[in-house]
Amino acid sequence: MPGARPRNALYAQSGGATAVINATACGIIEAARRAQGRVGRLYAARDGILGALREELIDTSRETTAAVRALRHTPGAAFGSCRYKLKGIEEDRAKFERLVKVLRAHDIGFFFYNGGNDSADTALKLSAISGKLGYPLAAIGVPKTIDNDLAATDCCPGFGSAAKYVATSVREAGLDVASMASTSTRVFVLEVMGRHAGWITAACGLAAARAGDAPHVLLFPERAFDEARFLARVKEVVAQRGYCVIAASEGLRDAQGRFLAEAGTVDAFGHRQLGGVAPRVAALVQSKLGYKTHWAVADYLQRAARHIASKTDLEQAYAVGKAAVALALAGKSAVMPVIERLSDRPYRWRVGEARLEQVANKERVLPAAFMSADGFGISAAARRYLAPLVAGEAPPPFRDGLPAYVRLRNVAVRKRLREPFQT
Amino acid sequence: MPGARPRNALYAQSGGATAVINATACGIIEAARRAQGRVGRLYAARDGILGALREELIDTSRETTAAVRALRHTPGAAFGSCRYKLKGIEEDRAKFERLVKVLRAHDIGFFFYNGGNDSADTALKLSAISGKLGYPLAAIGVPKTIDNDLAATDCCPGFGSAAKYVATSVREAGLDVASMASTSTRVFVLEVMGRHAGWITAACGLAAARAGDAPHVLLFPERAFDEARFLARVKEVVAQRGYCVIAASEGLRDAQGRFLAEAGTVDAFGHRQLGGVAPRVAALVQSKLGYKTHWAVADYLQRAARHIASKTDLEQAYAVGKAAVALALAGKSAVMPVIERLSDRPYRWRVGEARLEQVANKERVLPAAFMSADGFGISAAARRYLAPLVAGEAPPPFRDGLPAYVRLRNVAVRKRLREPFQT
Repeated sequence: MPGARPRNALYAQSGGATAVINATACGIIEAARRAQGRVGRLYAARDGILGALREELIDTSRETTAAVRALRHTPGAAFGSCRYKLKGIEEDRAKFERLVKVLRAHDIGFFFYNGGNDSADTALKLSAISGKLGYPLAAIGVPKTIDNDLAATDCCPGFGSAAKYVATSVREAGLDVASMASTSTRVFVLEVMGRHAGWITAACGLAAARAGDAPHVLLFPERAFDEARFLARVKEVVAQRGYCVIAASEGLRDAQGRFLAEAGTVDAFGHRQLGGVAPRVAALVQSKLGYKTHWAVADYLQRAARHIASKTDLEQAYAVGKAAVALALAGKSAVMPVIERLSDRPYRWRVGEARLEQVANKERVLPAAFMSADGFGISAAARRYLAPLVAGEAPPPFRDGLPAYVRLRNVAVRKRLREPFQT
Repeated sequence: MPGARPRNALYAQSGGATAVINATACGIIEAARRAQGRVGRLYAARDGILGALREELIDTSRETTAAVRALRHTPGAAFGSCRYKLKGIEEDRAKFERLVKVLRAHDIGFFFYNGGNDSADTALKLSAISGKLGYPLAAIGVPKTIDNDLAATDCCPGFGSAAKYVATSVREAGLDVASMASTSTRVFVLEVMGRHAGWITAACGLAAARAGDAPHVLLFPERAFDEARFLARVKEVVAQRGYCVIAASEGLRDAQGRFLAEAGTVDAFGHRQLGGVAPRVAALVQSKLGYKTHWAVADYLQRAARHIASKTDLEQAYAVGKAAVALALAGKSAVMPVIERLSDRPYRWRVGEARLEQVANKERVLPAAFMSADGFGISAAARRYLAPLVAGEAPPPFRDGLPAYVRLRNVAVRKRLREPFQT
């Protein structure tokens, strides 16, 4: 319709932040700016879908070109994120009607939701607004998760950088432990994220370039923790190498399916101790085998470590953002741009397209073929898959010795609705 | 004495490894190679002073120029390190006599001991061999410690890189927490090293470039932990900012002087729980204030993180190695090259010289003037001191997406003594 005013767009970030989710935001903002005349203003919701419900919108047009560009090298979620799951349109009808009110008040015709499988589910439900609530909306999911557990995509933006961080960290700590083992620490445990899927644990295995290199034992959430087998293995490695480096998933469970991190520890204050697989595994080794141990828990450091992001990951994060806008402009809805792998070596990839039904609420665990036969390492197939995802460096600019990250102005859009959102 | 065969030299690494201790090794090896004709072979002791006692020597002349150069970018202690303290010559006479036997068997006239205040003490005792046991030896201490707690030097090689790592990590994790605070984690705790001195804790404070930035609360080992004041502060920060990031020293103690990390936790297996100030502080916040918390323990990651080493630190580590050889060739003994600061901005420094008596067994804690008035932050004076130490980047080469670290050949020197070392 020549002459028709183009409809506005809304972008929101969801779930845990990553080192490169803002690169996706950059891809979307830059693509939307280039699509002037076909997309109106691009708003961002403050704190994910909650911002949409609360009518807390940010006007991204108030950010400079340089600030938007700097999102490529800034970790965290620049517009705020949330953990908030919408039920079905029938069950949560009031909320969906509220969303429609907000969208209509700001003439939003395109919605981009950047997150994991929960967020794909939310985007899918929003795409149904057109049919069920009569409000025309193109809803596009945009993949993001360090856990790499989304279906229908070869890998997930955010994972490659977390993988590069954990593999680098375990290689570095391994050299440290090897130095000191004769008189000090013999066993080191690094705890990594990935509650249900062992992708990040597997990535630690990349650090071992040669047989005998650290890490020596990986503990995947997909395999029940077998204390006796584990201890035997650690003992064997220490006998052979003089030390043993272990990478353990936070989601490690025993044969009864209980999380090791929730083993009900109570501290001296009488407080229930928060999780911590690494301290538990280290305590077990120390008490049963008598080796001096050390442990580290990377926690948020591994998903925020933009300083050691993977260039491949960064480029893919940007590309899915750009592709999301192209999909919306092509009239698509209920879809997600995904990464398709064309070849391993040389690594070639392109952005493809998946239906949100293929992604929503699904979880892709580590294939059994990616674990070594004994279950304590990774296979050659896993290496072939993982290696390209950590490839390439893309350091942020530094100022005064520290990474210089951007803070956006995040100028609020004037509210148009009188009534506030009632949770 | 023209024509006299030059005496050999021995280098040993001691205590905890750092990101740049091998840069010091590189400085020593390169300087010794350039001093051909004045220094004979340069040996390295395997696993610190223990290698000297056991006559486990490594011939550094068997390493290529490129491998030696690669030590500049390789963390860990390339020749192995140890925690092993010698008593006085009278008390530990058998050990010192054994050392003299080993030194004599290999015609070692120069000894370089690379470590902290314990190691300075060992080097000082070895320097006394000349007088007390009649064996001529120049013993030089070479500074190294991430803890930055050595006397008589403005800073310690190893500290600047650990400082850069923790400040970067807390800045990155801070952005992550800020993103999610409205519906998820409100309080994040990062535990850092420095059992007795708060230098690394203070370095976290560099991450806060502007008022209100993370970290919001620093918990120094020099200040007794006051639970009520701490909780009040966290509550206040969360009320103002929506979230709170805390950096806590592993050496945090209560008013009775007890380490929080040794609060006697017992896990579900009935094992005594290993340390962990971060989980303890997080549990306290969660139970008393009800905020969702997350915590990380950097442990060895912070002292091995060569991938984000400080260029200043790297240059100083190399410089003290080179200077140690110069001191030995100048006929000095019982001394240590130290870093002298000439100005803050622009930062200028040079290598000076200290007597080992000034360093041995002394510990330099964080000056009270480096803490803010409330004891939860750092002062402007601390910033002036710390900022130049993290300045500059010196990334290692990467191969297949991960830092490419060297492994030396470490060719053993043929033993000349019949009797083994008896501990």
